[in-house]
Amino acid sequence: MNINEIGRRAKDASLYSAKISTEEKNRLLFALANDLESNIDEILTVNGEDVKLAKSNGVKSAFIDRLTLNEKRVREMADGLREVAALPDPIGEMVRMNTLPNGLKVGQRRVPMGVIGIIFEARPNVTADAFGLCLKAGSATILKGGSNALRTNTMLVDIFRKTLSDNGAPEDLVQLISDTSYETANEMMRLNDYIDVLIPRGSGRLISSVVENSTVPVIRTGEGNCHAYVDETADIDMAINIVLNGKVQRPGVCNALETLLVHENIADAFVPRVTKALIERDVEVRGDAAFQKIEGVCPAREEDFATEYEDYIISCKVVKNLDEAIKHIRRYSTGHSEAIITENYTNAQRFLDEVDSACVYVNASTRFTDGNQFGFGAEIGISTQKLHARGPMGLKELTTTKYIIYGSGQIRK
Amino acid sequence: MNINEIGRRAKDASLYSAKISTEEKNRLLFALANDLESNIDEILTVNGEDVKLAKSNGVKSAFIDRLTLNEKRVREMADGLREVAALPDPIGEMVRMNTLPNGLKVGQRRVPMGVIGIIFEARPNVTADAFGLCLKAGSATILKGGSNALRTNTMLVDIFRKTLSDNGAPEDLVQLISDTSYETANEMMRLNDYIDVLIPRGSGRLISSVVENSTVPVIRTGEGNCHAYVDETADIDMAINIVLNGKVQRPGVCNALETLLVHENIADAFVPRVTKALIERDVEVRGDAAFQKIEGVCPAREEDFATEYEDYIISCKVVKNLDEAIKHIRRYSTGHSEAIITENYTNAQRFLDEVDSACVYVNASTRFTDGNQFGFGAEIGISTQKLHARGPMGLKELTTTKYIIYGSGQIRK
Repeated sequence: MNINEIGRRAKDASLYSAKISTEEKNRLLFALANDLESNIDEILTVNGEDVKLAKSNGVKSAFIDRLTLNEKRVREMADGLREVAALPDPIGEMVRMNTLPNGLKVGQRRVPMGVIGIIFEARPNVTADAFGLCLKAGSATILKGGSNALRTNTMLVDIFRKTLSDNGAPEDLVQLISDTSYETANEMMRLNDYIDVLIPRGSGRLISSVVENSTVPVIRTGEGNCHAYVDETADIDMAINIVLNGKVQRPGVCNALETLLVHENIADAFVPRVTKALIERDVEVRGDAAFQKIEGVCPAREEDFATEYEDYIISCKVVKNLDEAIKHIRRYSTGHSEAIITENYTNAQRFLDEVDSACVYVNASTRFTDGNQFGFGAEIGISTQKLHARGPMGLKELTTTKYIIYGSGQIRK
Repeated sequence: MNINEIGRRAKDASLYSAKISTEEKNRLLFALANDLESNIDEILTVNGEDVKLAKSNGVKSAFIDRLTLNEKRVREMADGLREVAALPDPIGEMVRMNTLPNGLKVGQRRVPMGVIGIIFEARPNVTADAFGLCLKAGSATILKGGSNALRTNTMLVDIFRKTLSDNGAPEDLVQLISDTSYETANEMMRLNDYIDVLIPRGSGRLISSVVENSTVPVIRTGEGNCHAYVDETADIDMAINIVLNGKVQRPGVCNALETLLVHENIADAFVPRVTKALIERDVEVRGDAAFQKIEGVCPAREEDFATEYEDYIISCKVVKNLDEAIKHIRRYSTGHSEAIITENYTNAQRFLDEVDSACVYVNASTRFTDGNQFGFGAEIGISTQKLHARGPMGLKELTTTKYIIYGSGQIRK
């Protein structure tokens, strides 16, 4: 099927998802979850073929891990769909409504986007997670996964389409683009007539390519070169806890800590202790001259400060003061999450005001930047752009609004 | 100056505009307004040169009209700046704040975009209007106007920069790109490191070109192929008033009416009267077979229904029912503004629910789609996209948010 036809079908199906009640959407989500679980064996068989082929193609082990499903992961996908059913429906909320002097009642109503495109890489669970959220948000979904996961994604989407059709809903509420070529991806990114928003999920390279080539509006997600700045008045134990948590609790994710900045007046007390604690947890510490005084620290080069390692590596630097810390963050940050550890009230407020990132923390770990942690129930990604959504995106961020106006014959004078 | 340097300067200046108080922003807006009025003679002289050159280049008269300033128009620009000063400052509002079970206080704060780029065509008043709104919204502005208005825009921006500098503010809060070449426009559209959002204002061709070429996030504005649907239960006098108002009150704007759809059961009573009234007001009526029975109606071709005339022309069609009307609108609308005229409650609600446009009206003229009319005080344009802003955009739509999180040492488990 060509990509225009896929777009047209999604647009048609989106009329259905925009209209149905919350009850109906939840009924579909439960049916999707159940059918996913009934087909675990078939899913794992096909996924095994994907994994085997990927291995024989010499794909990296971290990638293989993301690609691999097991019974537990499939059940988690199913539970994820049930959790989305339990979330409040954002559609139909009247954001505001005013009566104008001429009697017009102008209301802003939350409505579905229409068709949401998701471009992703290895993780097949994105298929279920993204489709579930888009469905609850009243939209149809077009998925384009990586070629390594094609068999698994095809099976998952086939199951979902059958469930939809068995339950009287249009199967085109979810479609997978099975042609994984670059040309087809490019066509998808220019399907402005049918796709209302495109959300890339995956590596920085994937995201940059979508931003570069798409004429469909894009929400940029994910890249996180996150900083912690330890101010001169920091509680040292708290600072060590927050730095360790940011770096080692789960290093491969976008809200993990990548750079540590330390005020020079606390460096003598803090640097040796934090470095030792990091090295004990197998973190490679790359530091400036001050850090290099500690045994086991390698030199940090300029490009280290611009790198999102997503690994057991951290770059470290001693700075003269808060101004230098903020300047460093402004220069190297990807605008995701940054933290200050301080007991100084004015510096805390200045950091919150002047650091221009999606999430800015005082005395807490950057690892909290997450839709579930923030209480949104689920997330489709973390936006690092300023348009439309910024930070963790839940159901609300997958919607738009329209103005509805009740008149009684008003004309403009 | 090269475009990267312009971007870098704007970003630096935006740190200032993000920090200053509402009082300070308002003081600057009043100073800008006063200096604009003090320089009326110089502005009109330079504008006269632009107009003369445009005329000698054979530019169309509608374009010349938009380009031409006079004392009244300059005073209106100054008053516009004072009105922006009077608007509430959107920056700093806490959109929501919750305390999580672990004690983290997570707040979403309204903050400036940073740097806003405006690409526009003939109207020099955009220079003052856009810059005033962006300044109040805490952002720096980079303007790129059309070549025909270059002298006027240069003079206006020079005046503004001197005012800023005389008042202790960075003059780079507003910059004009004086190179009006296509290549420079393209460079501007790819200045992702410095420009946070790009808003094109002007013709459909300009807007499409920006959407097509920009990697900076864009807000699509303006294009309005607006519809009125007269349902079988419509009050005929009201319907005629609304259709006439939509078409002739100001035909050259994006919220003017372009297509009239009429339910077949009311056609005999309504079509002759509305056609006569339109023709009396010098409107060219292009109709389907049913309309062509009336003297003076020309045939409407397929492409008429896809055309935004912005002129004394209207395309007209009789439809079988509400479903056909909605289907027609879904096919041809640009998603701007549409109206139903009806006394039927269910049809009114269905039209509001099922028409997927920024503004959907019952029993009122589409001409109300306007930031001032909606009570937003001023507008930077009307968004016809679904991302970030939809419909008239006021100060709030020129801002973004960030999450600020107050912790007491929390780490993720």
